[in-house]
Amino acid sequence: MNIDHFETCIRTVPAGGVTSPKGFKAAGIHAGFRKNPQRLDMACVTADELASCAGVFTTNRFCAAPVQVSRQNLGGAEKGYGLVKGIVINSGNANAATGEQGRAVAAETCEIASQILGCESEQVLVASTGVIGQTLGIELFETGLPAAIDALCVSGGADAARAIMTTDTHSKEYAISYTSQTLQYADCTFTVGGMCKGSGMIMPNMATMIAVITTDAPVEPRVLHSILKQTVDVTFNKVTVDSDSSTNDTCIMLASGAAGADAAPIEEGSDAYNELLYAVHEVCETLARTIASDGEGASRLVTVNVTGAATDEDADTAARAVANSPLVKTAIAGHDCNWGRIAMALGKCGVVFNQEDVSIDIMGMPVCRGGLTVAFDEDEALRRFEAPEIVISCDLGAGEHTTTVWTCDLTHDYVTINGDYRT
Amino acid sequence: MNIDHFETCIRTVPAGGVTSPKGFKAAGIHAGFRKNPQRLDMACVTADELASCAGVFTTNRFCAAPVQVSRQNLGGAEKGYGLVKGIVINSGNANAATGEQGRAVAAETCEIASQILGCESEQVLVASTGVIGQTLGIELFETGLPAAIDALCVSGGADAARAIMTTDTHSKEYAISYTSQTLQYADCTFTVGGMCKGSGMIMPNMATMIAVITTDAPVEPRVLHSILKQTVDVTFNKVTVDSDSSTNDTCIMLASGAAGADAAPIEEGSDAYNELLYAVHEVCETLARTIASDGEGASRLVTVNVTGAATDEDADTAARAVANSPLVKTAIAGHDCNWGRIAMALGKCGVVFNQEDVSIDIMGMPVCRGGLTVAFDEDEALRRFEAPEIVISCDLGAGEHTTTVWTCDLTHDYVTINGDYRT
Repeated sequence: MNIDHFETCIRTVPAGGVTSPKGFKAAGIHAGFRKNPQRLDMACVTADELASCAGVFTTNRFCAAPVQVSRQNLGGAEKGYGLVKGIVINSGNANAATGEQGRAVAAETCEIASQILGCESEQVLVASTGVIGQTLGIELFETGLPAAIDALCVSGGADAARAIMTTDTHSKEYAISYTSQTLQYADCTFTVGGMCKGSGMIMPNMATMIAVITTDAPVEPRVLHSILKQTVDVTFNKVTVDSDSSTNDTCIMLASGAAGADAAPIEEGSDAYNELLYAVHEVCETLARTIASDGEGASRLVTVNVTGAATDEDADTAARAVANSPLVKTAIAGHDCNWGRIAMALGKCGVVFNQEDVSIDIMGMPVCRGGLTVAFDEDEALRRFEAPEIVISCDLGAGEHTTTVWTCDLTHDYVTINGDYRT
Repeated sequence: MNIDHFETCIRTVPAGGVTSPKGFKAAGIHAGFRKNPQRLDMACVTADELASCAGVFTTNRFCAAPVQVSRQNLGGAEKGYGLVKGIVINSGNANAATGEQGRAVAAETCEIASQILGCESEQVLVASTGVIGQTLGIELFETGLPAAIDALCVSGGADAARAIMTTDTHSKEYAISYTSQTLQYADCTFTVGGMCKGSGMIMPNMATMIAVITTDAPVEPRVLHSILKQTVDVTFNKVTVDSDSSTNDTCIMLASGAAGADAAPIEEGSDAYNELLYAVHEVCETLARTIASDGEGASRLVTVNVTGAATDEDADTAARAVANSPLVKTAIAGHDCNWGRIAMALGKCGVVFNQEDVSIDIMGMPVCRGGLTVAFDEDEALRRFEAPEIVISCDLGAGEHTTTVWTCDLTHDYVTINGDYRT
């Protein structure tokens, strides 16, 4: 399949989100997890019929109760897919480090929702985000779930996206549509939508913060899991705000098949599969970049490209070393074109290269060649730092492997936000 | 040997430093590396006679020119010891990422100093600290070295300690004396002194920022290397200010033997060796804690104790995960007893434990038992956060291995200092 050509078939859905694909409804309400009644704090996303579902979850050993329950409902860590009717997400309390009581609340949430939705309790997934280590009661779910499910509608995606926010400064949604170029799905228009929340404690090992991706393409659960896993590895998993992986990271994808009711499921490896993979990648990469650019206190999105690494793992390690270095991140906040700190970060992380082979560019300006400084125009550098996205490109001269990682700068606001979070 | 008893034999030397042990001189002058003429920027430490010397250096692949030259002068990375007459250190320019030209300047510095000191150029070591990636000329060494060597005196330790500072807020020196309790060295009084600089880019893999340790005990170079290596691993290498390992980390120890001119060298594994090891550990741990407490922008020294780890490596990984977590560090800056972030940091780092077995104490207050929250008095917590040292203790319940790591909190001043460093 000619993906270059396919790219031109993709259209952004104006104000699109999780309810842009056919067959989904969503809602966001104030259930009382937060004190401020203006603040939405419970989201529901449901499929009109049971939908194919795949999930990836945090690898943090202090994983939260809802992660344990949702993972179980998708057949355990080894499987990660199944049929699902709906997802319930609360913000304001992470239900993490809450033990047996926390697990009981997460399971009871599934049970209550399933009774109203008319499905099995295993067909409901849950996710929570907020403070760790505070007990969460079932009461707000008992009162909130009927209200949230009553509010479900095809235009509810925006409210749902608002309800999952924590220190995010804005909600995060995106959707695209494309008309399949394959013979089998000729003239079928498929839509992929998504919402997520990010901000702090962001360096997922496997998934993300909380993200829900939807599509109306016909895909079986196992195939959906393959698409989700591949995509998350090169999108959400390449975001790092502060090197801290949350206890609650959850990324769930639902496929309703409602775009073409009679269409056969898309088969793994087919052209239609590659089209959908491309579209899901587009949505997830856009959302992932949005998370990085809205990192706690961020003034800039920072994109770190590493090329010339000896292995994929080296490329990833080197890019993360640069992206997580507090000295690099504060230099960017200070508009300081201090490439020596980038060299330091590359050098400390244990990947293989010779310093004589290293090249570094900042915002397209060569600042280091052959491991040595290159004279550059400081005024021009300051001008380029005005851009909303700062691009750092490092070539290690040690091989052919490459990667891209997204982060943000480290500002006074990060310290303010995280010094005052609970108070 | 009864080390408990030995502890009582140790006396702090008032205003002690590198020249407290017999047989050493030092100086610190303004040589012109910095624009401010009030700011000392070149330090020399010399031994009256050729001294036993051991060194450990950064493992950063972008290691600086003086690191390469000094390592070579101590017989290469595999050896790390020899006989040395003196050490020259400049601040204001790291001479890192400066290629062949930088190495030539470092070697030429040794050559000029050796001619004045009357020794071989390989018997001089060099170290540099400051901005990375800026060319450093030989001119300031040509004019500065004669002046610095002319200024050498037995009371010059304090000036030398000031001359190696970068963003340190105060100079760092310490010295202790002890009378040997062994038969062989009965009534010999040995002194161990040291100076160091720290502040930013501090998470050495092997050594430290820049540290010089001296003693007048009689020790051969190979034995001195054994003492230094063991000590650095559990002192300077357990400090992390910002997870960033410098290109210039250097720790050098000199032994003059001048305390007892006729005494035989101390043999590895002997009681006298254990006494000296204990004393060197005391000096290095004190200096290491000083570096952490004076980390860039720090308002608090933070001590992270991990117990109950399955392996030494797990203990170290877990302690560093807590100590390097920006969310933990900003919580401490905000006096927020937010143990959930500590649990998150323990959970993300890949070490083996079950969350049900984890206990966490902050400043001696139990905040987590069996992986669950413990009610505590928030007012009492706030009161305890007034202390200059914040102690976090984590028991993983997974084994018998323990460690201690030192760091500092992450404050607005860190962002200010590092956003404005070059400007």
